[in-house]
Amino acid sequence: MTHTPIRFGIIGCAGIARKVSRAILCAPNATLSAVASRSLHKAADFAKSNGFPPEAKIYGSYESLLDDPDIDAVYMPLPTTLHLKWAVLIAQKKKHLLTEKPVALNVAEFDEIVRACKENGVQIMDGTMWMHHPRTRKMEEFLQDKQRFGQLKTVNSCFTFFTDLDFLKNDIRVKPDLDALGALGDAGWYRIRSILWAADYELPKTVTALRGAVLNEAGVILDCGASMHWEDGKKATFHCSFLTSLTMNITAIGTHGTLHLTDFVIPYQEQEASYTASAKPGFNELVTGWEPLPSEHTVTVDLPQEVCMVREFATLVQNIKKKGAKPDMKWPTISRKTQLVLDAVKASIEKGFEPVEIVN
Amino acid sequence: MTHTPIRFGIIGCAGIARKVSRAILCAPNATLSAVASRSLHKAADFAKSNGFPPEAKIYGSYESLLDDPDIDAVYMPLPTTLHLKWAVLIAQKKKHLLTEKPVALNVAEFDEIVRACKENGVQIMDGTMWMHHPRTRKMEEFLQDKQRFGQLKTVNSCFTFFTDLDFLKNDIRVKPDLDALGALGDAGWYRIRSILWAADYELPKTVTALRGAVLNEAGVILDCGASMHWEDGKKATFHCSFLTSLTMNITAIGTHGTLHLTDFVIPYQEQEASYTASAKPGFNELVTGWEPLPSEHTVTVDLPQEVCMVREFATLVQNIKKKGAKPDMKWPTISRKTQLVLDAVKASIEKGFEPVEIVN
Repeated sequence: MTHTPIRFGIIGCAGIARKVSRAILCAPNATLSAVASRSLHKAADFAKSNGFPPEAKIYGSYESLLDDPDIDAVYMPLPTTLHLKWAVLIAQKKKHLLTEKPVALNVAEFDEIVRACKENGVQIMDGTMWMHHPRTRKMEEFLQDKQRFGQLKTVNSCFTFFTDLDFLKNDIRVKPDLDALGALGDAGWYRIRSILWAADYELPKTVTALRGAVLNEAGVILDCGASMHWEDGKKATFHCSFLTSLTMNITAIGTHGTLHLTDFVIPYQEQEASYTASAKPGFNELVTGWEPLPSEHTVTVDLPQEVCMVREFATLVQNIKKKGAKPDMKWPTISRKTQLVLDAVKASIEKGFEPVEIVN
Repeated sequence: MTHTPIRFGIIGCAGIARKVSRAILCAPNATLSAVASRSLHKAADFAKSNGFPPEAKIYGSYESLLDDPDIDAVYMPLPTTLHLKWAVLIAQKKKHLLTEKPVALNVAEFDEIVRACKENGVQIMDGTMWMHHPRTRKMEEFLQDKQRFGQLKTVNSCFTFFTDLDFLKNDIRVKPDLDALGALGDAGWYRIRSILWAADYELPKTVTALRGAVLNEAGVILDCGASMHWEDGKKATFHCSFLTSLTMNITAIGTHGTLHLTDFVIPYQEQEASYTASAKPGFNELVTGWEPLPSEHTVTVDLPQEVCMVREFATLVQNIKKKGAKPDMKWPTISRKTQLVLDAVKASIEKGFEPVEIVN
C-alpha cells in the first residue's frame, strides 16, 4: 500500500460507532483522526474507551470536525432524521461520507444527499456491513451458478430482535423525530437489501405490506413485513421486528438450488461464517430421505466485515484523492434502490396494505 | 402388546402408498392384509414389489376390498377428488380410515366424510406423517417453554420442490379432475399444518394469499403463498410450489426464542433428525457475534415417522375394537382446521388476494 491512509472523523457516538471505530482502527488504509459529539466530554470519553490514537482530535460540535482540513472522510452514525442536513454539509465540506442506514427518511431526501456528493466530488457509501463479508462473495457465486442454483424464484428473509420496555420507550429507533422509520429502517433495511442482493439488484415491480404491522403510539413501525413481486414472476417476503427473538434468516430458492443461512446480518462468530447450499436436492427412491444432502460451507474471515467495509470505502476515496477517479456510483445506486423499496413498504402500510408500484 | 394387529387394506397404488405399505409392515400393531387397484395386475405387482406377506389378498376393484370382512382399516392414497365418494363408502363398510392429504376438496366435503365416520363409529386420521416424528414432540416442548421460547409471534414456513415438464403435464397433482388443489393441497397442506401446529391449533382470524400465485391453464395452483393473522397479533406466512428447488424450512419465532429447521416434512435422514433452538439469543458486547449461540438438537429415531403414524392410528382403532372406545376426535379436528385454512387461501386467490376471514 503506497497510498497514505484515509483519515476518518466520526460525528456522533451511537452504539454502532464503537464497532465501526474499531473497524477504522483495523483497516489497513484508514486512520481514526477525530470524533465529535455535541458534548466535548462525551466525545473525549468515546475516544478513550474505543482506543483512539493519542493524536486523534476531540470536538464538541459536528461543525468543528467538518471544518478540520486534516479529515478526509466522515462516518455518520446519526439518527435518520438528521441525515439530510449533515450529509449535505459533509459533502459541501468536501468530506467523503460513510453513512449509517437507512440512508434517509425517503428517497427524495437521499437524492438530495447524492446530488450534494456528486457536486462536491465526494464518495458516499452506506454502512450495510454484511455486504462486505467474504461469505457474501461466496454466496453470490452460488446464486449466479446456473447449473447448481438455476434461476432465482423466491426469497424469504427476516431480521427480528427482542427489545425491552426501556428500548420501546426511549431508544432513538422508536422516536418519530429521530429514527422515524423504526424497525423498517433498522432491521428492515438489511432484509430489503438482502432481497435486492439475491435478485442482483433488480427492483421489484410491486410491494405489498403484510397485514398486521405494529406501530407505536407515535406511529413508528415496531414490526412489519412485505411481499414483493417482479415482472418475471420472482417473489420475496420479509419480516422485521423489535418485538420477537433475535432471528436473521434468509432463504433464496432457485429452480435448481437453495441458499440458506441464519446469521446473515451479524454472523454468529467473527472468525468464520457458514452458509448452506443445496444443489439439485431430491429424495431417495422411497422418499424417506434427501439425496444429495445440502452442504455447509464455512468461510474463514481474515478481517471482520466492518473492517472490509471501511477498507472498501477508503479504497474508493483513495482512488478519488490520489488517482483522480470519479466517485463510484455502485454503492449509492444500491442504497437508493433499498430506500425505494423501503419507501414502498411504508406507503403500502399507510394505504392499508394495498400494493404499491415501484417507480424508479 | 396383547391386542391382535389391525389388518390394513390399501386402495390405490400411488407412489406414496409404497412408503406407507412399508410402514404398515413395520408397525408393531398392524398387518398388511390386502391391496386393491382398478387393475388386478397392477395390484398384484404392487404387492409383489412392496414385500406384502404371501397371504395378503389382491383385489381388482376398491369395492371388493371394502367388502372383505377380514379388513379392519383402509389406507386411502387416492386423488383428492375421489376422497368424498370412497371415504364415505369406507366408513359405511365399517372400516377405519387413514387418508392421504388434503383430506378433501373443501371443508364441506370433509364434514360429510367425518359425519359418515361418526355415524359408523370408525376412526379417521390423515397421513401428515411428520406430526408423528419423535422430533415433533421434542420441538413442542421447546415451543411450550415460556422461559426459553416465550409467546409465539411469527411463523414462516415453506415447502417447495422442482418438478419436470412431465410432472407439470401429466401428474395427478396438476389435474383439475384429480388433485384439484395442486401445490396448495400437496406441499401447502404440510405448511398450513405446520403453522397451526406451532400455534397450538389456534385458527387464524384472517388469511390473505400473497400476490403472484401461479396457476396452470386448467386453473390448478402450481405455486402460491399466504399470510395469516391471529386475533392476538400472531402472524405467519407460508409458500408452496412445484416450481422451485426442494426446500422445507420452518422458523417459529417467539418473544424469547426461535425454533428452526430445514427438513420438516421429510427429514434428511431416517435414522435421526435435528432442529435448532435459540433461547434468549443476543449479541456480544460489541455486537460482533451472538451470545448464546443457537443449539442444535438431534433426535434418534427408533421407528420412521410413517411407522409412528400407522402405530398411532392402529392404536386408536384397537381402542375402539377391543376396548369399546369412541373414535378419537383430535386428529379429524386438526385435519378440519388445516382444510379450513387451505380453503381460505384458495378463496383469497380467487378474490384477487383479498383477506378472507376464517369462520369455524
